[in-house]
Parts: sequence; structure tokens; C-alpha cells
Amino acid sequence: MRRIRLTIEYDGCAYAGWQRQENALAVQQVVEEKLSKLTGEKIAIIGASRTDAGVHALGQVAAFDTESRIPADKFSFALNTMLPEDVRIRESAQAAEDFHPRFHAKGKLYRYRIYSAQHASAIERNLCAHVIYPLDLERMRAEAQSIVGTHDYAAFAASGSVVKDTVREMKAVSVEQNGPHFEIRIYGTGFLYNMVRIFAGTLIGVGSGKIEPGAIRRAIETGDRLALGVTAPAHGLTLMRVDYDLVPEERLLWDSVN
Amino acid sequence: MRRIRLTIEYDGCAYAGWQRQENALAVQQVVEEKLSKLTGEKIAIIGASRTDAGVHALGQVAAFDTESRIPADKFSFALNTMLPEDVRIRESAQAAEDFHPRFHAKGKLYRYRIYSAQHASAIERNLCAHVIYPLDLERMRAEAQSIVGTHDYAAFAASGSVVKDTVREMKAVSVEQNGPHFEIRIYGTGFLYNMVRIFAGTLIGVGSGKIEPGAIRRAIETGDRLALGVTAPAHGLTLMRVDYDLVPEERLLWDSVN
Repeated sequence: MRRIRLTIEYDGCAYAGWQRQENALAVQQVVEEKLSKLTGEKIAIIGASRTDAGVHALGQVAAFDTESRIPADKFSFALNTMLPEDVRIRESAQAAEDFHPRFHAKGKLYRYRIYSAQHASAIERNLCAHVIYPLDLERMRAEAQSIVGTHDYAAFAASGSVVKDTVREMKAVSVEQNGPHFEIRIYGTGFLYNMVRIFAGTLIGVGSGKIEPGAIRRAIETGDRLALGVTAPAHGLTLMRVDYDLVPEERLLWDSVN
Repeated sequence: MRRIRLTIEYDGCAYAGWQRQENALAVQQVVEEKLSKLTGEKIAIIGASRTDAGVHALGQVAAFDTESRIPADKFSFALNTMLPEDVRIRESAQAAEDFHPRFHAKGKLYRYRIYSAQHASAIERNLCAHVIYPLDLERMRAEAQSIVGTHDYAAFAASGSVVKDTVREMKAVSVEQNGPHFEIRIYGTGFLYNMVRIFAGTLIGVGSGKIEPGAIRRAIETGDRLALGVTAPAHGLTLMRVDYDLVPEERLLWDSVN
């Protein structure tokens, strides 16, 4: 028996998220079905992050066990001939027998993309949240920094969340602008459900003047969800990378998938 | 009667190109149908560039005549409520009575995007041509520069092309790399059919070592299409901008739609 690790990219538009569901197609199901067909075994995979419906991934990590004799690094090539074009295996490799994609993750990088213009974008409609009003980059940057640190992020937990420990560490954040395009990046040791989308919605609120600066600091202090902005749309969000080693400070927000 | 100018963005994936056709859906047809519905007139539009099936546009320009009393700048908002999400009117404005999107164009900017990696990209599969081998940026840059100037580009005309005058002026070109992503930009006073895709295919050939450097210079000298690479796929190509005024040298390759 070997444990194989997959690094997976997907366009979340057509999927009900990562996790297998009863009545809707999830990315996990698609990959499991192709793996089962490929190996002739009944394969179950575990993913690092349960991305929501519409959320994309450049570097989701998943693992499965197999008796198959296919070389570990060849699973990517074999699966990519079987998978739909909106799901790609970027890499496959043998992992330690006890490797767990979720429990062993040391950090994750997310990006959130915004297109700020009077009219929506046709070409990037599935990758950027459209915001109709102008955004102030410097206000967003200043506000974003106040999420960094080790805090109780209870205010950022979606209502109905059952997680008890809401303390996490946010290690780095950035906000960049290129014309109408804004990109938020945030690196943390772990995230609460919907946390990045609530963070993005709050930065959009502060950037557009609808929310007073200082909202994130107040929300962390008080735990009040209502101090924050609305949950920004799923399709602006991409899971960029999951790290299993400590990453040097200056590379936390880098693009590359390990 | 007023002449209205539209600046149009579209994701070309679902369309048989810009120009209206018998048995396939073109962007022109979609816009004409919505305009006719909006105004109650039978509207015909003329576009600046006949982009091919699968080719995208950020700044296609088109014009039409109308008796409608809708304010010129409101056509964009009205049309965007009617059009599918993969076609957006970025701007509408009143134009001179004799404005012609094609004949009056002074220059056009195209970009061609390449994703160079072992596996294709899921997220950018419709915006980048996938190239499986590594590309040498400096070789591509050096080769690209030899297209600049006023030349007879007969070698770059697709076979079967009926255009007689194949002299054009290429004013500026650039090749940039960001990890696996390459972006070629080319600004010219006009382009032959498939010219940018043949140019991109040649740079891919030179960058991957399959074509000897100097191919573009030799093709311009001899007029030999076979000196060049294959026509690169349509979905890597985007018409960025059509200019009706002379643009300063340093802004030729800029992103912005005027």
C-alpha cells in the first residue's frame, strides 16, 4: 500500500465545491471516480481544504492510498487524460504513509480578485468579483494589515459554524492594484469557514467608503460579525497553495505552487 | 440619425468569431439582435476587426446608426442588462457621422498568452495556449524584435488570403514572462489574417528550439510562409485595443482601453 499526494488545480465554476455531496457534482467526486477507474480500486481521497461552490484552486492538495503499481509521478499524466479540462493534476508524488493533507498543513495562501469598473468583465467574469464603485487602494492596504497576527477571529466565522477554537495566525497579507484589477493575498496557518470571503468583503467595504477604517481591529476585539462587511462572492477566491513545511517570510505570498 | 460607437469586450470561447455567419453564432449577431430589440429598429453594426472563432477582445470597436433617442452613453448600460455575460459593452459614445471602425483605425494592440508547463492550466485553459516544453524568454524577445518596422508581411498571410497589399507597419512588440505564463504584445497599423497567431507560433518555435533564430527576418525577406512556425491556437489571442488617434510611443503596448 502506498500513499500518493496530488496537487490539483481546478476552475470551480462548474462544481459544488471540493467536498463530495449527495445531489451536486464536487471536484473530489470527479477525481475519485477517475482514480477508481484508473486503478480498478475503490479510491477515497482526502483534501487539504473544503473549498466552497464556485471557489477555484491552483494548489489544492489531496492524498489517497493505493495498491496500484503505477509510478507515483505518472498518476498526474494518466489522470489528466481522463479528467475534464477544468480539473488538472499539477503533480503527483509518493507521500509518507501517515501524510494527512489537512492535519499536516502548516499554512495556506489564498488570493481574492476584484474587478472594479462600471461594467463587469466578460473575460474575467468567473475569476473576479465585480465591484461597481471605485476602491481606494491605500485604505484597503491599511485596513488589511490589521488582520495580521495571532488572534481570535470568531467575528470572521460564518454564522452556523461549529468550530470551537477560532484562534488562528495570519502571517502576511497584501493588496495590489493593476488598473481595474485588485488582488488580495492572505497567508495563514488556518482559516475559518468563509473567513477569506468575509475579509475580502470588508476590504471592499472600506475601499469603497461604506465601512469605516478600523472595522477589522474592532471585530477582532469584540467578536462582532456585524462590524465586518458582507461575504464576498465565491468566484473571486482561489486557494493558491497549501504548505507542509515552514515557508520563509519573504516567500509567503509568492505565486508558485510548491 | 446618430452614429454610436461601442467598445466591446468578449470571451470568444462560445462564438464563431466576430463576424455574422450563416450556421454559427457570432458576437456581431448577438449585439445586433439586442440593439434591434432595444431600439425597435433593424440595426446593423460594423466592427473594427474580424476576430476569429475563439479569439477574445477587450477593446473591439463597433459602430451603428440609430434614430433612437436613448442617450449615447446609456447604450452600454441598457445592452449589458440584455447581453450574455461573456459579452460586455465597456463604453458607448456618440461618434462623428462618417466614423468607420475599420477604415479609420490608426493602430491595434493584440496580446497572445502562453502557458508553458508539463500539464495544462485548468483556470486559464480558455485564455492561454498550452505549450508542453520550456521556452527561452531571451530568444523569443530577440526574435520578436525583428518583426518591427514597415515591411511586406506576405509570409505571415494565411494561405488562401485574398489581400493584395501585404505591407504593414509593426510599431512595437514585447514578450514578458511570469513563471509559466508568457505574454506577447504586438502593436501595428494593421494586421493580415492570422498574422498574430503565425507570429506567436513562430516565437513558440524559436523559444522551444524547434525553429532557428532569424526565421522572421528570413520570412520577411523571402516571403516564404514555410520559414515560419505553425499558426498558434485562437484562444491565446486577445484584441486589446483599437486606436483612432496616434498613440505616444511609450503607451503603444499599454493595457488600457481608450
